Amino acid sequence: MNSKFLSGQDIVNMETQKRAAFVNSLTGFKSASLIGTIDNNEKTNLSIFSSVTHLGSNPALVGFISRPNLTERHTLDNILETKYYTINHINKQIFKKAHQTSARYPKNISEFEATGLTPEFISGMIAPYVKESHIKYGMEFMESHELKINNTILVIGKVIEVIVPESCLMKDGSINIEEAETITIAGLDSYHTTKRLAKLSYAKTDKPTIEID
Amino acid sequence: MNSKFLSGQDIVNMETQKRAAFVNSLTGFKSASLIGTIDNNEKTNLSIFSSVTHLGSNPALVGFISRPNLTERHTLDNILETKYYTINHINKQIFKKAHQTSARYPKNISEFEATGLTPEFISGMIAPYVKESHIKYGMEFMESHELKINNTILVIGKVIEVIVPESCLMKDGSINIEEAETITIAGLDSYHTTKRLAKLSYAKTDKPTIEID
Repeated sequence: MNSKFLSGQDIVNMETQKRAAFVNSLTGFKSASLIGTIDNNEKTNLSIFSSVTHLGSNPALVGFISRPNLTERHTLDNILETKYYTINHINKQIFKKAHQTSARYPKNISEFEATGLTPEFISGMIAPYVKESHIKYGMEFMESHELKINNTILVIGKVIEVIVPESCLMKDGSINIEEAETITIAGLDSYHTTKRLAKLSYAKTDKPTIEID
Repeated sequence: MNSKFLSGQDIVNMETQKRAAFVNSLTGFKSASLIGTIDNNEKTNLSIFSSVTHLGSNPALVGFISRPNLTERHTLDNILETKYYTINHINKQIFKKAHQTSARYPKNISEFEATGLTPEFISGMIAPYVKESHIKYGMEFMESHELKINNTILVIGKVIEVIVPESCLMKDGSINIEEAETITIAGLDSYHTTKRLAKLSYAKTDKPTIEID
């Protein structure tokens, strides 16, 4: 493949929308999640995020990045108000509706109603799950960090419950998220299914990596 | 799909390795990157990370999570020492070698030599790139945040240069990372290629989402 070299200045010089598309593509494939929240007046909210990231397994901590802008602040406002939220994997049946939640709906419009996704209330969780999502988990807000360098906010929560297809729970503890039809996002607007190349053995310095399963 | 409900206590009760596999699967598909560094004695280091995340486009900021443990600290130590590092996409030709960098090699062994990946020095960047990687970018360290809740460290850097296949640069500014053969990771050890479902139009409240391209 013929390579192109771009300097930092080349990136600075890009037109705003192109730069956003370029830099958002740079970090590789991203998780595709819908975050469900509710406010104290029981108004629900649903928004797509591609920054949901594993922070630790014991305790089970998950973070996401909230931009300091209007669209995504409904999610953060609700989380700070009620302390609970749900994270729902996006699958190939619902990715268009999921993408549509990124439109700038006013606070009094629930993205559930606007997109036709179904709010689902499970166990005692006050925040809505997405019924159409196959893997979903309930979160309790722990802490947030403002990243002063660009005013984005890292929101950290603890996993307090998980709903997962029984057939996707593997013997080693992992979840077969491909089997659950979870998809992945590239850049700002590109949605992809996956095909497993291999599952690899735990890497040791004195043994070659082998395929397992 | 038949669903299984797991409580927070069910997760706490899991055996350590199974819990790690479970919680690492929970956040969906992840970016697959090799981070290249060098120390002041010109010893190179290469390590796989699945937590590389877009933090902002202007300035172009990218973060990753460094666990407070032995294996991954070589990367962070080198970054703090020299301030520069490279992030290299993992493709299907090199994913086994990339996985092998997660073995706990001692500091005096370079994962480049141990795995057979080729260090490449481009422009003035002091940290090594991975020659076999198709999309790669040079980073300048900006700041780190210790997340007190579990002592992991969020490392933030600025993108200072990018090398990308010319044929993968799209008119809208995005990079076709699937065309560049970038892969994605599920959980701790599962590697996946992708297939694009669709690229969707910018979501508006008064228009339906449509496929573009």
